[in-house]
Amino acid sequence: MSFKSFNPPVRTLMGPGPSDVHPRVLAAMARPTIGHLDPAFVGMMDEVKTMLQYAFQTRNSLTMPVSAPGSAGMETCFVNLVEPGDKVVVCVNGVFGGRMKENVERLGGIPIVVDNAWGEPVDPNKLEDTLKINQDAKIVAFVHAETSTGVRSDAKTLVEIAHRHECLTIVDAVTSLGGIPLKVDEWGIDAIYSGSQKCLSCTPGLSPVSFNERAIEKIKRRKTRVSSWFLDLTLVMGYWGGSNKRTYHHTAPVNALYGLHEALVMLQEEGLENAWTRHEHNYRALRTGIEGLGLQFIVREDSRLPQLNAIAVPVQVDESQIRQLLLSDYNLEIGAGLGALAGRIFRIGLMGQTSNLKNVLLFVSALEEVIARLRLPVDRGAAEPPALRA
Amino acid sequence: MSFKSFNPPVRTLMGPGPSDVHPRVLAAMARPTIGHLDPAFVGMMDEVKTMLQYAFQTRNSLTMPVSAPGSAGMETCFVNLVEPGDKVVVCVNGVFGGRMKENVERLGGIPIVVDNAWGEPVDPNKLEDTLKINQDAKIVAFVHAETSTGVRSDAKTLVEIAHRHECLTIVDAVTSLGGIPLKVDEWGIDAIYSGSQKCLSCTPGLSPVSFNERAIEKIKRRKTRVSSWFLDLTLVMGYWGGSNKRTYHHTAPVNALYGLHEALVMLQEEGLENAWTRHEHNYRALRTGIEGLGLQFIVREDSRLPQLNAIAVPVQVDESQIRQLLLSDYNLEIGAGLGALAGRIFRIGLMGQTSNLKNVLLFVSALEEVIARLRLPVDRGAAEPPALRA
Repeated sequence: MSFKSFNPPVRTLMGPGPSDVHPRVLAAMARPTIGHLDPAFVGMMDEVKTMLQYAFQTRNSLTMPVSAPGSAGMETCFVNLVEPGDKVVVCVNGVFGGRMKENVERLGGIPIVVDNAWGEPVDPNKLEDTLKINQDAKIVAFVHAETSTGVRSDAKTLVEIAHRHECLTIVDAVTSLGGIPLKVDEWGIDAIYSGSQKCLSCTPGLSPVSFNERAIEKIKRRKTRVSSWFLDLTLVMGYWGGSNKRTYHHTAPVNALYGLHEALVMLQEEGLENAWTRHEHNYRALRTGIEGLGLQFIVREDSRLPQLNAIAVPVQVDESQIRQLLLSDYNLEIGAGLGALAGRIFRIGLMGQTSNLKNVLLFVSALEEVIARLRLPVDRGAAEPPALRA
Repeated sequence: MSFKSFNPPVRTLMGPGPSDVHPRVLAAMARPTIGHLDPAFVGMMDEVKTMLQYAFQTRNSLTMPVSAPGSAGMETCFVNLVEPGDKVVVCVNGVFGGRMKENVERLGGIPIVVDNAWGEPVDPNKLEDTLKINQDAKIVAFVHAETSTGVRSDAKTLVEIAHRHECLTIVDAVTSLGGIPLKVDEWGIDAIYSGSQKCLSCTPGLSPVSFNERAIEKIKRRKTRVSSWFLDLTLVMGYWGGSNKRTYHHTAPVNALYGLHEALVMLQEEGLENAWTRHEHNYRALRTGIEGLGLQFIVREDSRLPQLNAIAVPVQVDESQIRQLLLSDYNLEIGAGLGALAGRIFRIGLMGQTSNLKNVLLFVSALEEVIARLRLPVDRGAAEPPALRA
């Protein structure tokens, strides 16, 4: 056995995440490790909390990054808020709504599914109808930005409906935070989770979450213990909480938090609204390019996520071959379809640092070249290097 | 709100972890992020698995790092192996044994505690007696290297006893992996977890785990579903598993894994046995220094961990003041006591990169100076800067 240091290729990350990480964030990751109870580190944690409150547009004091990827952020919401026997209305319009349902089941809750077609937003009327016949439901859960299909649901309206029926809300904002308008306090979202590696453009591995007072009340009134020690918020808050005395819970991922801190400093420098506008602006450029190639989005214009674009695979080409050529010849990563959409769509991320005009141009040009190459007769296709032929 | 980039102080980390991280590992953390399904990344994952097998001294194919800190590694073992109603014998001789017990309770298991004094190893006779009167116990869990007290238990013997009573074993090796002899296959350990930030000297945030075939059999025979989606091994293995086709489970912490890869390359370069010898060697130097100062270890010589040393706080001095002075004047972090030992001991880590003679000398000299300073009359103590007075 004799392994060497790993030197990754330099890719352009236009898939569903991770997105491109700015050199400032990478540099922060490499700063000297200090202890997770060091006063200097605790001061940095407070700044991370404040900047996450800004990103989420909330004053919730229980706002912090979970020390694990987005799926653990999802689990943090469900494991703390759902007790065995709780009826939870889960709106499903893609992979991640399905994962929410599975979380409810594993915790002994009773999921009531509001089923929506993949590629369409959650239908508020369906939610309303479901809540009318499930008056004992306690929680409504849905995905704000469904990463598997590129669809935005109307979070504000869905939360309003849930509250009218006296339900708490759990919102998946993994792909929306930092990319499109998201206003936790104004919309009244009770519990929310996100990921570090999408529109925040940090490295993967952390999951920002936020809980309001109503959600905390439900946790305090639990009759059963939270099944997870690692994700039990009453314990985690002893470490991330507001008091000066931090008690040891687990060892925080120190350097990953340096990275998140730097990514949030950059978001603060740009301004949240400016970041939203930038994502919208570059989506429009992508749309022009995609339509120019005669390709089609699978999502209706008014429900599209500017940061994650699901494009129908053109007929007569093998989508995995296209992805492989983009990776091998252009160091360009795009995403495949998941579940029911596997093989049928590409997913083009324009998230965080990835969202810039240079990348749009690169992707549209490279895609055009690769499609042309695959449609050429084999003898001509093999004759010249692609860059010269394009 | 106007936060700046965070530049941590440069500390010497001689607490219970994180330990000092080598510049090679820090540099690896800052390499360009690539996708978690990128073929280049998948190749690196395979190397990490092979090098972890070496560190654990196992051929278990289910050997990988959990994408979260050591506490999540502990939870991975318990949430997959313990079903509601399972009787689990938990040996407790410090904080982390207590945490194991809590894991069992939260999962609906029945913990049977083998209680041992803090500062002493787990008594094999007590375990044997407990198993004799609990013939229906299914699992024995214990901590190999108890981080809260600096005690080594005889893992080989405890596993033998457990197997004689047809129990599976779960072993906490958070502080032992890479620091003292640990032989998963030779000793027959069934499930084991560790942490990245101790004797492997990587940044915190990952938890290497390993499961043998018997453990996997128990998981396959489960009658109930694993309550955690994030930590369900049958799902995680689709991503970390042996087949060429990796299926998406969660987004791996890409850059943190670069760091672990580099730390494991360094372990391979040094050689595992050499690393064990180095830890023992530097402990002996520390012992000479500590005894020279007239201070005492709280653990009997034959049960001490060379990598984590619990020293009784000398009378007439305030231990928190000593730790604060070491941090402020020498940028030197040491650990406090936890739980029943809070205020009564220091914990001196000589783990991974921290374990070198330079650090031993620095610590002994700095401790001597600080204790002398605190015992001086106030007027003299304030008169001169400490470095000149020493």
